Amino acid sequence: MNALLEKLTSGDVRSAARLIRMIDDNQPAAWDALKQLFPHTRRARVIGVTGPPGAGKSTLTSCLIESARQRSMSVGVLAVDPSSPMSGGAILGDRIRMNRHTLDEEVFIRSLASRGHFGGITPATRGAIRVLDAMGKDVIIVETVGVGQDEVDIARLADTTVIVWVPGLGDDIQAMKAGILEVADIFVVNKAEHPDTEATSNYLRSVFKQEKNTSGIPRDWMPPVVETVATKSKGIDDLWDVLDRHREYTAGASDYFVSRKRKACRVELENFVHQGLSEKFSTRFAANGLLDEQAALITSGEADIYAVAERLLAEIR
Amino acid sequence: MNALLEKLTSGDVRSAARLIRMIDDNQPAAWDALKQLFPHTRRARVIGVTGPPGAGKSTLTSCLIESARQRSMSVGVLAVDPSSPMSGGAILGDRIRMNRHTLDEEVFIRSLASRGHFGGITPATRGAIRVLDAMGKDVIIVETVGVGQDEVDIARLADTTVIVWVPGLGDDIQAMKAGILEVADIFVVNKAEHPDTEATSNYLRSVFKQEKNTSGIPRDWMPPVVETVATKSKGIDDLWDVLDRHREYTAGASDYFVSRKRKACRVELENFVHQGLSEKFSTRFAANGLLDEQAALITSGEADIYAVAERLLAEIR
Repeated sequence: MNALLEKLTSGDVRSAARLIRMIDDNQPAAWDALKQLFPHTRRARVIGVTGPPGAGKSTLTSCLIESARQRSMSVGVLAVDPSSPMSGGAILGDRIRMNRHTLDEEVFIRSLASRGHFGGITPATRGAIRVLDAMGKDVIIVETVGVGQDEVDIARLADTTVIVWVPGLGDDIQAMKAGILEVADIFVVNKAEHPDTEATSNYLRSVFKQEKNTSGIPRDWMPPVVETVATKSKGIDDLWDVLDRHREYTAGASDYFVSRKRKACRVELENFVHQGLSEKFSTRFAANGLLDEQAALITSGEADIYAVAERLLAEIR
Repeated sequence: MNALLEKLTSGDVRSAARLIRMIDDNQPAAWDALKQLFPHTRRARVIGVTGPPGAGKSTLTSCLIESARQRSMSVGVLAVDPSSPMSGGAILGDRIRMNRHTLDEEVFIRSLASRGHFGGITPATRGAIRVLDAMGKDVIIVETVGVGQDEVDIARLADTTVIVWVPGLGDDIQAMKAGILEVADIFVVNKAEHPDTEATSNYLRSVFKQEKNTSGIPRDWMPPVVETVATKSKGIDDLWDVLDRHREYTAGASDYFVSRKRKACRVELENFVHQGLSEKFSTRFAANGLLDEQAALITSGEADIYAVAERLLAEIR
């Protein structure tokens, strides 16, 4: 393992790929490796790119890779695909547009499954970010298909969270307001050749003016709205300008920013502990077939899920 | 509490609203009440309606309510809105189009927050479904904004899961394939006046033909694709035909259906137990300020989240 970590921290692609695979498979040795990598991390700039399906996130990510390379920054990309906890299956999206970067050695692209009962993209993704960081990547882009929870998860991991929106999306923006308010650092309105672009951009700007601040610490960063046409590489320089402004802002470590970061970190710490606990007890109950037996009784209506859950919890305590 | 449950099971709207509020607030008494309601449940037909933002789910739900009422069925609707676990805040979407049903006493509509660290819509939503079921509603429609995990969650709760799609959504359908394959009972291609409609419908049909079946039990239900224009109430009768066909299919209790149901039930049982465990330990660590203290150290780079999580887990064991 030490040899692997040594190669990894000097930038070796195959070691990085191997460790990410170990993390994705949830191997106990990976957990130890991640702890050992700690001194080599916290250098990369982590950019989260999230938004609803069809918003053009992959194309935008591809544009960001290209301009980062033009600025001589090395790039790591993690594409987090939703997968089904029912089968534990993972799919690696065929990210055609990203393929043109695969011959560039300074660009490292990996797909990760978003496994786990809780749909949490956090634990494996955080591990993979740490690996790319320790490898020496300057910029790490984490792309997720997100609505609601996923956006919040990505915001915990990223230094800057970019929400990719498109003109004319329906009522749901209303329902998603609270989540977006708290996690968005930058809005991109992609496909900005659409006639509804201006109205959508204005709406996004207005949302923050109406925000009720419950944290007690005044907001000192208003998420800017950048309009892009990723398929034509339009607006990407504007996006970098805003990304750089946000980086300067975070470097200033304002009270607002630090308090948000701490809150996010606390939630993630809880997630880690819960995951550890859950794995322990799942293993225990799964071993004796108890869960399958009870699930069959609940399905047939012979037992009540609330009563069964209570009994299992009582057994643990 | 007994008086409340008695009124509730005779259809009283205010008692139902009160119990749902208790569930949403995670009050311990609500858990007991849900157990007591068990004998009065398993009568309603639960239809999940999910899909990406902007697909027109609320409009479609409104159409479904209307035709259910024309068929003399009483209806309960649960709209699950994403909310932010960072603040615990909930938002009640202003579902304008549903408002026209609010004067109809046989229609009961509630918004639920999707609270919880794990973004799981399951526990409170399942509780609310049970309440509406015990109230005597014939049909319960659960509407969620979903991509990935949320679709899977809703499929666990619903007898029939309807995925609402729109023509011309981008690459992401590829990435979402695995999840969709396992949970979709019916596809709706809404906004079917769009020129890409046929291509999208054909694509969705083709997806199932290429499916790799890993369960060992042959699939005996191929999710039909129904084209609708919800804003003009078009295609809703077709959708009901397919909903009725699926209901007949599930009543047949095929091996494939029962095995899927059992698997889903088992996952949910684990979720219940994990939630119980998590609450216990969060309370414990939160009480002495340990989590906040450690989160501050991790944020500033003085401590490593992996090492801290390991230490906390060791303390519990």
